[in-house]
Amino acid sequence: MLFKTALHTLFGSLHGETFRIAYWDGDERRYGDGLDAAFTLRFHREPPLLLENPLIYLGEIYSDGVYDIDGDWNALFRLINANKTRLIPDAVGRTLQRVGDTLGRRKRHQKDNIAHHYDLGNAFYRLWLDDTMCYSCAFFRSPDDSLEQAQLNKIALCLDKLGITPGMRLLDIGCGWGQLAIAAAERGARVVGLTLSEEQAAGARLRLAERGLSDKVEIRLMDYLDLDGNVERFDRIVSVGMFEHVGRAHYGDFFDRATDCLEPGGLMLLHSITSLHEDPTNPWVDKYIFPGGQIPTQANIVNQLAGHDLHLLHAESLRLHYARTLEHWLERFNGEHEAIRALFDERFIRMWTLYLKGSSASFRAADLDIHQFLLSKGLNNHLPQHWGHVYQPDSTVPRW
Amino acid sequence: MLFKTALHTLFGSLHGETFRIAYWDGDERRYGDGLDAAFTLRFHREPPLLLENPLIYLGEIYSDGVYDIDGDWNALFRLINANKTRLIPDAVGRTLQRVGDTLGRRKRHQKDNIAHHYDLGNAFYRLWLDDTMCYSCAFFRSPDDSLEQAQLNKIALCLDKLGITPGMRLLDIGCGWGQLAIAAAERGARVVGLTLSEEQAAGARLRLAERGLSDKVEIRLMDYLDLDGNVERFDRIVSVGMFEHVGRAHYGDFFDRATDCLEPGGLMLLHSITSLHEDPTNPWVDKYIFPGGQIPTQANIVNQLAGHDLHLLHAESLRLHYARTLEHWLERFNGEHEAIRALFDERFIRMWTLYLKGSSASFRAADLDIHQFLLSKGLNNHLPQHWGHVYQPDSTVPRW
Repeated sequence: MLFKTALHTLFGSLHGETFRIAYWDGDERRYGDGLDAAFTLRFHREPPLLLENPLIYLGEIYSDGVYDIDGDWNALFRLINANKTRLIPDAVGRTLQRVGDTLGRRKRHQKDNIAHHYDLGNAFYRLWLDDTMCYSCAFFRSPDDSLEQAQLNKIALCLDKLGITPGMRLLDIGCGWGQLAIAAAERGARVVGLTLSEEQAAGARLRLAERGLSDKVEIRLMDYLDLDGNVERFDRIVSVGMFEHVGRAHYGDFFDRATDCLEPGGLMLLHSITSLHEDPTNPWVDKYIFPGGQIPTQANIVNQLAGHDLHLLHAESLRLHYARTLEHWLERFNGEHEAIRALFDERFIRMWTLYLKGSSASFRAADLDIHQFLLSKGLNNHLPQHWGHVYQPDSTVPRW
Repeated sequence: MLFKTALHTLFGSLHGETFRIAYWDGDERRYGDGLDAAFTLRFHREPPLLLENPLIYLGEIYSDGVYDIDGDWNALFRLINANKTRLIPDAVGRTLQRVGDTLGRRKRHQKDNIAHHYDLGNAFYRLWLDDTMCYSCAFFRSPDDSLEQAQLNKIALCLDKLGITPGMRLLDIGCGWGQLAIAAAERGARVVGLTLSEEQAAGARLRLAERGLSDKVEIRLMDYLDLDGNVERFDRIVSVGMFEHVGRAHYGDFFDRATDCLEPGGLMLLHSITSLHEDPTNPWVDKYIFPGGQIPTQANIVNQLAGHDLHLLHAESLRLHYARTLEHWLERFNGEHEAIRALFDERFIRMWTLYLKGSSASFRAADLDIHQFLLSKGLNNHLPQHWGHVYQPDSTVPRW
């Protein structure tokens, strides 16, 4: 009873949305200033005592099946976003976390962090990703695009922005299961793809071999920190959905290493989830989904440019493209519950449902965004006059 | 002779380019490490003693016809860019200048600053601007576009990015001679255009009246600092080539005032010259061309977004478009020397030649860039799925 009072106090302290809590004892209450609740948290049983911080707790007991979420998930994630300071660890904890990052925890743990997520097994990801095995934001040229088409569009968008032509040397930092490397090799580029996930490296090599592209693409189990411009240089660099794992303390290192091995005038495309505000990492996501991840702000990225002589050519938000990508993934994930249960338990399924659905809602309605930044190392006066062709792949555009 | 030695020491201290100085006494010397000089400064007579800082001095004696520049102006402006710390006032001077700005010198002087440049007279600008009277970077969709076509393209690019539709209320901060306001009104928008130049206001009102659009567009002699969201709000804001006059101390004020009078979900297009590095203003430009102007860095702008809940939708550099625009202006300016001599003296013509040609070279080869930033106030989930249509005005693009 005392604990229910504590929960009631917590829910009552949140502002910005109207919602209902259906407690386990039949009691149902409305919170917020409106008349109509946008969603209801429906408790099936009494939860354990709250010992963790609230966001970790709410994520854990959702995964345990203690409650379900009925109604508008967007409103739930707007609520979480509007009440971050109450729901996320205090400034002292965040400062300690940053000090830890700076002291180089990262280097030691980064491979474990990556393995935590990406080494869940190729069999698992193959169940609900499309055939491209792309695990990043797709690009919907038309509302009717299938997920696979939209992933191919995304890769074409990257390669078109970079102006990939035969013979170019392309470095793909965070190559995943290799689809972008495959497409670049098919355009005649020579590609080096880096990943820290052994499952991804094995999967990418297999897929390249199946397509007869093994001599055009080298997949390396290698940290970007070990790149060295004295050893090798590239005409183009692409990094899709990797920068989220770099962490604020290492943004300078990332751009140091990348520009060190990029030819003068060379282009880099950075595709990363971003946020507007420099928020602490969602602690539930950090504990269960992406340990060590950190969402950069757009300013974090742009503030790195001057120190590395990187010129901003083009940038765009793909925010709602990621919401739709996640909705595709969720639908496919939901259709494969039985097969996933053969690999993991029910708790895992609920945890991933919360992650996929919560991420989608955060892109639609809260503070998550995603941007592609196209950069040149120094000036390059031989680029297209505008970027219209990247949206209409059959059209040409005059060059300067 | 002592003074020639001082100049020789100054030129000898510059690094990064190879060039020649043909002194007034017939002596010709090469500076820099290369074999071939990229340009020669050819002195026709002995210059007066150097009393100003070097950049102001070199600009003044060029205007006075003391020397001419033969060869590659791009290399000259690369040289200036690479040797800024030697050629531009020291940090103490810059700090004092900023303190002055902060103490509100700006508010008092801003109208004078604007008048210095833009009130040179509509007759003067009409001589060498095209019929659109646009005095900002044009957009060349094709290499064959005339200047006028490219200016109309630029306006269409702005209006297409903003998604201007009939009935929308558009605020144009720095409306110049009104061409963008005319085009927006022709699309059915209701426009308020702000300028601090009486010549521009008079010219814009006349051009609107000629087109029967006076009831759709209100031109105001008004400072953006006097905007008030309690008095009026707009669906869209556009600002083309005005932000360069705002000054670092007032970027926060600019975004405060703009977002205050922008509807939630409304879009703002900011079109401004930018630089990568936070350099001191070129003192010759500050003294003779744009008093009080200051080039923002891309980071200056992006760092304002979070505090104003402005979401970055799209950004692109139009760097070489501005170089080409300036080359068009220079060609037209050169064709009108006789008519300009009826208004101003030879010194003015040489000063403006240096300004136009130097700016073009700085966009091509040194640190000047120009960006359009498309921003939304808060989230807007009803925008086009991508920006392909802004490059191909006849194509449609699905909306979310």
